[in-house]
Amino acid sequence: MSGNYTIGRYLIDRLAELGIRDIFGVPGDYNLSFLDEIMEHPSLEWVGNCNELNAAYAADGYARIHGISALVTTFGVGELSAINGIAGSYAEQVPVIKITGSPSTKVAREGRIVHHTLGDGEFNHFSRMYQEVTVAQTTLTASNATREIDRVLKACWIQKRPVYINVPVDIHSQPATPPAEPLLKEEAKIRSERLQQMLESLVPVIEQAKSPVILADFLVYRYHAEEELKRFAEKVGFPVATLSMGKGAFNEEHPQFIGVYSGKTSAPYLKKRIDESDCILSIGVQLTDSITGGFSQGFSGDTVIHINPVDVVYHDQRFQDVGMKETLNQLADSLSARDKSTLAITPVTEQDANPSAFYVETDQPLIQKRFWDMMQLFIQKNDIVIADQGTSFFGSETVPLKEHVTFVGQPLWGSIGYTLPALLGTQLADRTRRNILLIGDGAFQLTFQEISTMIRQKINPIIFVINNDGYTVERSIHGPEQAYNDIQMWKYAEIPAVLGANENVKSYKATTEGELEDALKDMIAHPESLRFVEVVMGKMDMPELLSELGKVFAAQND
Amino acid sequence: MSGNYTIGRYLIDRLAELGIRDIFGVPGDYNLSFLDEIMEHPSLEWVGNCNELNAAYAADGYARIHGISALVTTFGVGELSAINGIAGSYAEQVPVIKITGSPSTKVAREGRIVHHTLGDGEFNHFSRMYQEVTVAQTTLTASNATREIDRVLKACWIQKRPVYINVPVDIHSQPATPPAEPLLKEEAKIRSERLQQMLESLVPVIEQAKSPVILADFLVYRYHAEEELKRFAEKVGFPVATLSMGKGAFNEEHPQFIGVYSGKTSAPYLKKRIDESDCILSIGVQLTDSITGGFSQGFSGDTVIHINPVDVVYHDQRFQDVGMKETLNQLADSLSARDKSTLAITPVTEQDANPSAFYVETDQPLIQKRFWDMMQLFIQKNDIVIADQGTSFFGSETVPLKEHVTFVGQPLWGSIGYTLPALLGTQLADRTRRNILLIGDGAFQLTFQEISTMIRQKINPIIFVINNDGYTVERSIHGPEQAYNDIQMWKYAEIPAVLGANENVKSYKATTEGELEDALKDMIAHPESLRFVEVVMGKMDMPELLSELGKVFAAQND
Repeated sequence: MSGNYTIGRYLIDRLAELGIRDIFGVPGDYNLSFLDEIMEHPSLEWVGNCNELNAAYAADGYARIHGISALVTTFGVGELSAINGIAGSYAEQVPVIKITGSPSTKVAREGRIVHHTLGDGEFNHFSRMYQEVTVAQTTLTASNATREIDRVLKACWIQKRPVYINVPVDIHSQPATPPAEPLLKEEAKIRSERLQQMLESLVPVIEQAKSPVILADFLVYRYHAEEELKRFAEKVGFPVATLSMGKGAFNEEHPQFIGVYSGKTSAPYLKKRIDESDCILSIGVQLTDSITGGFSQGFSGDTVIHINPVDVVYHDQRFQDVGMKETLNQLADSLSARDKSTLAITPVTEQDANPSAFYVETDQPLIQKRFWDMMQLFIQKNDIVIADQGTSFFGSETVPLKEHVTFVGQPLWGSIGYTLPALLGTQLADRTRRNILLIGDGAFQLTFQEISTMIRQKINPIIFVINNDGYTVERSIHGPEQAYNDIQMWKYAEIPAVLGANENVKSYKATTEGELEDALKDMIAHPESLRFVEVVMGKMDMPELLSELGKVFAAQND
Repeated sequence: MSGNYTIGRYLIDRLAELGIRDIFGVPGDYNLSFLDEIMEHPSLEWVGNCNELNAAYAADGYARIHGISALVTTFGVGELSAINGIAGSYAEQVPVIKITGSPSTKVAREGRIVHHTLGDGEFNHFSRMYQEVTVAQTTLTASNATREIDRVLKACWIQKRPVYINVPVDIHSQPATPPAEPLLKEEAKIRSERLQQMLESLVPVIEQAKSPVILADFLVYRYHAEEELKRFAEKVGFPVATLSMGKGAFNEEHPQFIGVYSGKTSAPYLKKRIDESDCILSIGVQLTDSITGGFSQGFSGDTVIHINPVDVVYHDQRFQDVGMKETLNQLADSLSARDKSTLAITPVTEQDANPSAFYVETDQPLIQKRFWDMMQLFIQKNDIVIADQGTSFFGSETVPLKEHVTFVGQPLWGSIGYTLPALLGTQLADRTRRNILLIGDGAFQLTFQEISTMIRQKINPIIFVINNDGYTVERSIHGPEQAYNDIQMWKYAEIPAVLGANENVKSYKATTEGELEDALKDMIAHPESLRFVEVVMGKMDMPELLSELGKVFAAQND
């Protein structure tokens, strides 16, 4: 076996060991022979994308659901087209393995002026650029390859951020010894004496708090601590809010769930309950402008216990290497259950006393308010909801989700168009769950060709394109009537057909509530189909949250 | 006037002074208020693109025809999506001004975790990345802005490569003093004593050569020396070849033109005439793998006089600051005219004794050979021909062009999909010339949405999409039957209609010579329309040159 065993196979076997089943990317002559090794591998599939940025977005989506992902591009042209996607994975802490097929060792050593280079005989420009957006980088050689592969993949898994592996075209076919031991021998180091110190310091603080509250965010998703969060919350009985980046990490139908906090743009009860708490258990949170109404959180840092992926911080105390999951488990075991009547909990389910009816037959033009009401009823338990960073995100943010719904957005990096290729990744990561994309027309135009790959891969997500004639998120901030916020009007509902849709694809266009209702019913009746809906709404009709945030962002730019 | 005069207006006035009339890009909240200044400017138009990579490609195309160009994106997400396009401009020496609208000076100084950042409070990641692919960079401040703008724009113009200008959102509206003097006071410095030394050394060498030949390439285009090359060539009478990257820089119908040299893959006469020359006047040439059949040029470096943009090099002599145009003019004046009968010139027009007939009515399926014969007749004097780096480039390379045809390709950087958005730029740069794009289906899928912007801008180029069911250029190198070289089949001819085409857009599909002929005739009859043709050919039918080059590239990767 090891006689024919190669460096390329070693890398691919490690990817399979990490649970990766689909590898994204675009072929190029510096990676073609490596792709042969992927094609031959028994447990991996090659998913060819329309372009490299879309491949990076798809890999990001895949990793958010599946835990980790990989993509392969060619040198220079391919890897630079992908780099915005990798930067987004870095910002939002998504572990993606970026593999570049590059010119041969000999060509690079001799500094030859070959295609896909800058023509200066220098081959390190692009790996230097990747240093800015990855936590580990390597260029494989015949002698260092297996050691370097393991080092870099471990960094990706542990730090939950992208890494960069440069594979010269002559190297992957060199001989290697198969892995002798598992890549991940142990989980991240937990220091039990530190855990003990943490409990001794913080249990009294939490027990003495009069109005404790849990504020959870996206790192609960990334470190897969949803169950530990639930167990902890139910044990202590505290109310739970999330930020929008971690929306869905705690069941929004749970009687302890009090809403998605967004600083001064939060609902009044929620804002008061968080801002006036004397003890905020902040779990996996990073406060950024988009999710806090422009840093308008009203609570004092003194009240916050930060439970981070590897450490816990309170005032000037820092407990290193305690781990988020272990911390939540230990706190759950150490804290007493509160009498809930003392905690001023008003669940979201009670805050909105008038849930909208699904069936309101009407010829009225669709408006944002009614659209999101209908979405609340349409989104079901266990769905994955992906919302692009505009009207879609700020509209979805306020829709209460049922249990086990995963919410995917990109509020920190905020690259418009990200979500459509990301949907390819999230759906391939788990074909059994229903995936629902919400995206505006402006964002759609950046990356929509990846619908073609969805059709080719025979997956059946649901895509809502909100056609409001331009960049409404930008209009909310500046220049509502400026031509630069206009875009060309497309025939959106006809797009799947030209991208190769067969009879398994269903397309709809809705301009009224009645038309949308008909489409929703038909979509529910056809789970075996990729379903595409163009939803027409007014160009200045926007979710209230976006309208408020637009003013905040405009002020931030002064 | 200067009371309301701003830094933003200063920058835009300088762009207008450089002759720029159209600015490409995508809006984002960190650039919106700067875009207001562009909208208000009397001589500049904003051209909004579907995405930022396409904007960068369009700007590259614009600069190739117009001399220089500019694009504006937002920070992080936008500028990283564009960076592959800027890298291509760097590699192929195209002067593009990349402007980024970034978070305010205060936000950056305080290291706030705002959207479009990596979340680490560090605001220089992306400008560092741009250092790899631009020749000058700056971040504007209220005090340095006008000086820095001038420095960076001059570098772009003189070095013919991209530059990077970071405009924090609060800076462009700060007051400035209008320009007091022209940006470009003098042309690049010419050292007349060096010119004299050069003539004294080289005129005897050239006069004594038995079989001198001129080999010209793309830098003749970039430094706008087409007329000087023509005058020089006609004065001395030497035969002229180009490389494919500079195809069209010398009139291919000229009696001295002997073909497009490509190393061992050249036609036999051409290969012999170049490889056996005892004096090659190499003008604006950079030898790269794609244009030399994988570095298979057969001539000795000892025979070459390098006439570069700023210097002339022969053996160990280097004459600095003499200038390409000035060198050609001085040599033309100093050298005597040769008796052409001594120079063994066989013009291209005589090499191909059987030009194909245009009208060959047939139901036969189209093949590459016949397609390119028909293109030779279709392409007219003064056209701009843009060919994507695959079947299209290697097919076009061998098509003799009529006088004043400009040929645009990207054989060094070789980013597939580049040409479609580049066509937007080349056509806007000169609306009076007929633009013809040749692109394969694989490349088309990366970037095709920019057809939407062409429709919106009411321009009327001609687009040929060669539908050969996948990445044929990759099949020529490796894995002809591998699934990674397959793509989803689209209904190409229906695409303009869904992207908003009106009655001014004509679309055709041709699978036989007869159908193509009908389409060509109809296109000629409708110059007022954007014309789109899907041309269906076999997936392994490829131009002979590509077939040979595929083998060469495969060997280079071993």
